[in-house]
Amino acid sequence: MKATIYEGNKTFSVIHKEVEAPAKGEVRIKVAYSGVCGTDVHIYHGMMDKRVSIPVTIGHEMSGTIDAIGEGVSGFAIGEKIVVRPLDDRGVKPSDKGFNHICEDLKFIGIDSPGSMQQYWNVPSFVLHKLRPETDLKLAALIEPLSVAVHDVRRGELKAGETAVVLGGGPIGLLVAMVAKETGANVIVSEVNEKRIKKANELGLNAVNPTKIDLVKYVIEQTEGRRADVVFEVAGVQPALDVMCEVAGIRGRIVMVAIHGQKKEIDLFKFFWKELKLIGARVYEKEDYEKAIALITANELPFEEMITDVQPLSNIQQVFENIDKNPDGMKVLMDCQS
Amino acid sequence: MKATIYEGNKTFSVIHKEVEAPAKGEVRIKVAYSGVCGTDVHIYHGMMDKRVSIPVTIGHEMSGTIDAIGEGVSGFAIGEKIVVRPLDDRGVKPSDKGFNHICEDLKFIGIDSPGSMQQYWNVPSFVLHKLRPETDLKLAALIEPLSVAVHDVRRGELKAGETAVVLGGGPIGLLVAMVAKETGANVIVSEVNEKRIKKANELGLNAVNPTKIDLVKYVIEQTEGRRADVVFEVAGVQPALDVMCEVAGIRGRIVMVAIHGQKKEIDLFKFFWKELKLIGARVYEKEDYEKAIALITANELPFEEMITDVQPLSNIQQVFENIDKNPDGMKVLMDCQS
Repeated sequence: MKATIYEGNKTFSVIHKEVEAPAKGEVRIKVAYSGVCGTDVHIYHGMMDKRVSIPVTIGHEMSGTIDAIGEGVSGFAIGEKIVVRPLDDRGVKPSDKGFNHICEDLKFIGIDSPGSMQQYWNVPSFVLHKLRPETDLKLAALIEPLSVAVHDVRRGELKAGETAVVLGGGPIGLLVAMVAKETGANVIVSEVNEKRIKKANELGLNAVNPTKIDLVKYVIEQTEGRRADVVFEVAGVQPALDVMCEVAGIRGRIVMVAIHGQKKEIDLFKFFWKELKLIGARVYEKEDYEKAIALITANELPFEEMITDVQPLSNIQQVFENIDKNPDGMKVLMDCQS
Repeated sequence: MKATIYEGNKTFSVIHKEVEAPAKGEVRIKVAYSGVCGTDVHIYHGMMDKRVSIPVTIGHEMSGTIDAIGEGVSGFAIGEKIVVRPLDDRGVKPSDKGFNHICEDLKFIGIDSPGSMQQYWNVPSFVLHKLRPETDLKLAALIEPLSVAVHDVRRGELKAGETAVVLGGGPIGLLVAMVAKETGANVIVSEVNEKRIKKANELGLNAVNPTKIDLVKYVIEQTEGRRADVVFEVAGVQPALDVMCEVAGIRGRIVMVAIHGQKKEIDLFKFFWKELKLIGARVYEKEDYEKAIALITANELPFEEMITDVQPLSNIQQVFENIDKNPDGMKVLMDCQS
């Protein structure tokens, strides 16, 4: 079988090795597609070399079929379509208060242990979610990032008829916007890249460029002064942190989706004055996966438009180099069987 | 009648003037006691000279009795004990989403219009809350700040059995701690001033000095690793903003009680990692006043201990000068009839 290996120093290699039998409690997956996540790019840039065990196979946004079933695993059949929810919460403790998905000793499969950018992948069976036979496996590779978006919208308690402002129109931002719109909210996407604005429009979203219009004024006009009920900060830059407190209306909820590695300046006075809430959101829970699977299965939203490239596993080095050169792209999938 | 006047430049004067008849929709209150709030000290320091209309009578933490009833006011009787909820929300708009207490055009009585540090005070009748005849009017002057504490605890959704950490043991911090304890929570107060720690202990609270012990380690030990369910940031200093993200456990709620006039650095990564919430809290709603009135009426908590000085209205200049010199004191009341 083919497997890709992150070697450190912005380098991937493709190796050939023996397919392994699944251990007790595990299944072997024939991986269909594995999407490239922002975190994978972060790893490629060497930003997570302290956390990943180089050399390592990365990848966690995937779809596939059951290829072999280990001892003690029941309820699965060879050939069944599945996705992996890559959270190994076996270290959960009472002090995690039942929030297994963010437990202190959580292992993220594909970062803390080998991932899906290979032809076959052995994982514990408890991470599997079954798909219906008719599910498109290309679209199914979007279930993991879509679950992030579903979780973010749920954390924001967004309701039909409310206004959501999504700051940042990258892959996660646009998925958040799509889920928010599907919830029945009025959605405004703020994005500086014109090609991403065009993509947002193709997805049926209202997107504006905050370097060309006054975003706060625009949101006030669009909402008759109410401003946003929920703001999703998906941009990860200081101007977004500044504007989020402005576009949020009274009792607005701001969902912190972007990952800020350094401490950042926040206008706490606005939190006091308008009784805002800042809501941290990380990965997903089981019900978020179920919702994302239902959305992909129904296939009523333009998810296909999110996939801007599909490349064979053997092109992995070029894929990551191209992502650096092309800030306009959305989701790139690795075709793990070609 | 006697009235105090803030003249700007850290100066109060005491004047004598005619008692005025209440206008239509107003009552005249014979003010019993008027507490000195941190905001009043802020005004005295000249920090709010742009907002207040100098010369002006300030004060909003008060108790009193109905002295005269204006045209069109019903349901009140001369001599009835009352407190004022000093929020003039007559400018409320649909864009305020029903949150009248923080509506965009809110006028805070005692800041944006004349306050209670005078013998008689005319206010619109809709700001009144009735007290029972047996209510101690000295304690009743604590109802306004106690309502702030009740609101903060309610915003934090604190439940019995949970652990609350209160950062800052000044008047509001200790009232928050008392309400949190009354809710059935395990409460830890963090305060650097030893005299305030002693005061907290006298109130039956567990208070520690974070410059003498490792607060994070202490909270972890006290909670068997769960850390705090709710953190109240009442200190208003950067070390509190740093430690709040540390002492909060998974899905911890951090209530922002302190007023931060400048943008401050926040560890947003911790918000992501532990899915924390930051919750802005400002003033109070009607139900917070009702709860505070019930607590003062029941008089089962050591509220008396919070009042560290009572001074005649004529001593106002000295009172504000002393507050600056004495960081150990808690609540000072002006006796508005002597």
